[in-house]
Amino acid sequence: MAYASFKPISLPPSTNTFNPIPRSQTLLRCCNHTKTLKITSEPKPVFDSLRTFAPATVANLGPGFDFLGCAVDGIGDYVTLSIDSNVQPGEIQISSINGCSKLSKNPLWNCAGIAAISVMKMLGIKSVGLSLSLEKGLPLGSGLGSSAASAAAAAVAVNEIFGGKLDFSDLVLAGLDSEAKISGYHADNIAPAIMGGFVLVQNYNPLNVVKLPFPSDKDLFFVLVNPEFEAPTKKMRAVLPAHITLEDHTWNSSQAGALVAGILQGDLEMLGLALSSDKIVEPNRAPLIPGMVAVKKAAIEAGAFGCTISGAGPTAVAITDNAESGVEIGVKMVEAFMKQGNLKASAVVSSLDRVGARVVSSIAR
Amino acid sequence: MAYASFKPISLPPSTNTFNPIPRSQTLLRCCNHTKTLKITSEPKPVFDSLRTFAPATVANLGPGFDFLGCAVDGIGDYVTLSIDSNVQPGEIQISSINGCSKLSKNPLWNCAGIAAISVMKMLGIKSVGLSLSLEKGLPLGSGLGSSAASAAAAAVAVNEIFGGKLDFSDLVLAGLDSEAKISGYHADNIAPAIMGGFVLVQNYNPLNVVKLPFPSDKDLFFVLVNPEFEAPTKKMRAVLPAHITLEDHTWNSSQAGALVAGILQGDLEMLGLALSSDKIVEPNRAPLIPGMVAVKKAAIEAGAFGCTISGAGPTAVAITDNAESGVEIGVKMVEAFMKQGNLKASAVVSSLDRVGARVVSSIAR
Repeated sequence: MAYASFKPISLPPSTNTFNPIPRSQTLLRCCNHTKTLKITSEPKPVFDSLRTFAPATVANLGPGFDFLGCAVDGIGDYVTLSIDSNVQPGEIQISSINGCSKLSKNPLWNCAGIAAISVMKMLGIKSVGLSLSLEKGLPLGSGLGSSAASAAAAAVAVNEIFGGKLDFSDLVLAGLDSEAKISGYHADNIAPAIMGGFVLVQNYNPLNVVKLPFPSDKDLFFVLVNPEFEAPTKKMRAVLPAHITLEDHTWNSSQAGALVAGILQGDLEMLGLALSSDKIVEPNRAPLIPGMVAVKKAAIEAGAFGCTISGAGPTAVAITDNAESGVEIGVKMVEAFMKQGNLKASAVVSSLDRVGARVVSSIAR
Repeated sequence: MAYASFKPISLPPSTNTFNPIPRSQTLLRCCNHTKTLKITSEPKPVFDSLRTFAPATVANLGPGFDFLGCAVDGIGDYVTLSIDSNVQPGEIQISSINGCSKLSKNPLWNCAGIAAISVMKMLGIKSVGLSLSLEKGLPLGSGLGSSAASAAAAAVAVNEIFGGKLDFSDLVLAGLDSEAKISGYHADNIAPAIMGGFVLVQNYNPLNVVKLPFPSDKDLFFVLVNPEFEAPTKKMRAVLPAHITLEDHTWNSSQAGALVAGILQGDLEMLGLALSSDKIVEPNRAPLIPGMVAVKKAAIEAGAFGCTISGAGPTAVAITDNAESGVEIGVKMVEAFMKQGNLKASAVVSSLDRVGARVVSSIAR
């Protein structure tokens, strides 16, 4: 059978007791108030060690290009962070990276390291050294926010080990420091990786990211189909048009509005129609991913509400309202990648991650 | 005092018993199913005569250009429709037009007449002649959906006099026939004029208009300031850019998303920020309306959550959460039109009209 999963991860329950981050379903807005952030004295560590998880994220979502993303449950990256007396106070070392041989262990060149350092600076950590271990659950360059997941897990880990003084917006800014160096100054992966659910980036200056609560009584499943194919973000950005017609702009804007309405109302039909409707980005990127056009068609024919490219690709994302349909849709999409694109692909069916980056275990001091 | 109203209209209660149109606060979608519409036999008139009202509408709403509009309470057009044995069966005559001397009484060249004829065709009316009287409460070319209000009042009147066989989507299509001939094929005025509240036009082919319910427990007021200045829609369309940058597109799309989120969540801060944020249409149109830039600034300084051009102008629209602030904001906006634009202006403060076009009185057969 063509259907296979990435790396199935047995996740801890989302409602663990360690995470002080609010999980309200009401509207949540983060503004950039780090300028007024007053950490009057260096916080003391609350834990000797802790382990965090941050989920994969789907950015763009068709007409939500560069400003909308969401977190998906069950796949993501882990960070284990420890107070380490062998590390120079105020510094951090990356002790190990599992699941990926390509990443640098120099914290200045590692997405988890950069985010961790930013949070340490925000907190003013000078007296304690940290040791970080990264477990990659997400493939690099897949369009699933791999770098953002590492950065989110690291940012939350550092914040929580010192008692959780910072809020979402600070952590998103720390994550943005990392994203800017690794994959571009975009918050549509890092914000949902940290905050969970759907997040709309309304502004960068000042940062204004808004969580869009998907109704808690409705189900939403993502079929994520990842072909064995490299689609470097730079190459996928290079094919975007510099200018677009007012007509296409108006169309895509209306679909962006419908996308947000579909999310907030839990209306998968509207959400799916909007997701599939992008006339600006997807039509330019899809031809660079062999089989993508056929994969989208196969997803819709198999009953998906909508389908598009996840992030900058090559992963294709389709949505549905139950896990069984998701598996069937995934099989058809994997088949289409093979038949029309001559690409092997693997699929996972994930529900919406409503929580975001979180502590999954800890050892108190 | 510079503050004055248009034509204050004493409105009937919104919840009159004659209107069979559902007023649900749940999501409402209209799709084009007139192709499958089966009116098997010509309906008989239910009333000898009735009177309808349709509200003014604010289209565009900044980044909602050409796909988003809303209805505002208290100002609009009235239609009185009667069964008239002196009129050729299957035809309609316009017996009088009050409040405007410029409009044609030929139903083929009058927005109310065109919409009425479309509804008569949909219903297959052949045995009865109708006589229509139009009372204009809205000035022409003001950016408040004057033609849409007439068309909506007429469409609903014809439908209701024959027992209300058609639904929202049919009536919007009938209204679109009128809008297409008078001011362009855009549903962002006619749809909210008929359906009430905020309406998003997701598609024209097939027609898919979605009502976006503003929370019933929250207040929203529009400050509408209409200067004595002509801003013909054609001229206002001519200044729009044919092409825009991807950067501006992304910005405006994100604001369109925020606009929808602000509406659905009743978050006036987000709604106002988005309303004021258009980088594509408003910056090109505002310079053509003397004083508009200063009027927007004055509105924000006076406490409005946001401000932009209503429709294609010249009316400026600001939003606030209470009527008293609305009056204060209106005064400042009127002053700014005079001071910076040398234009006399009048203001009204209206709440959101959640109902749309409706029967206000009737005489049974």
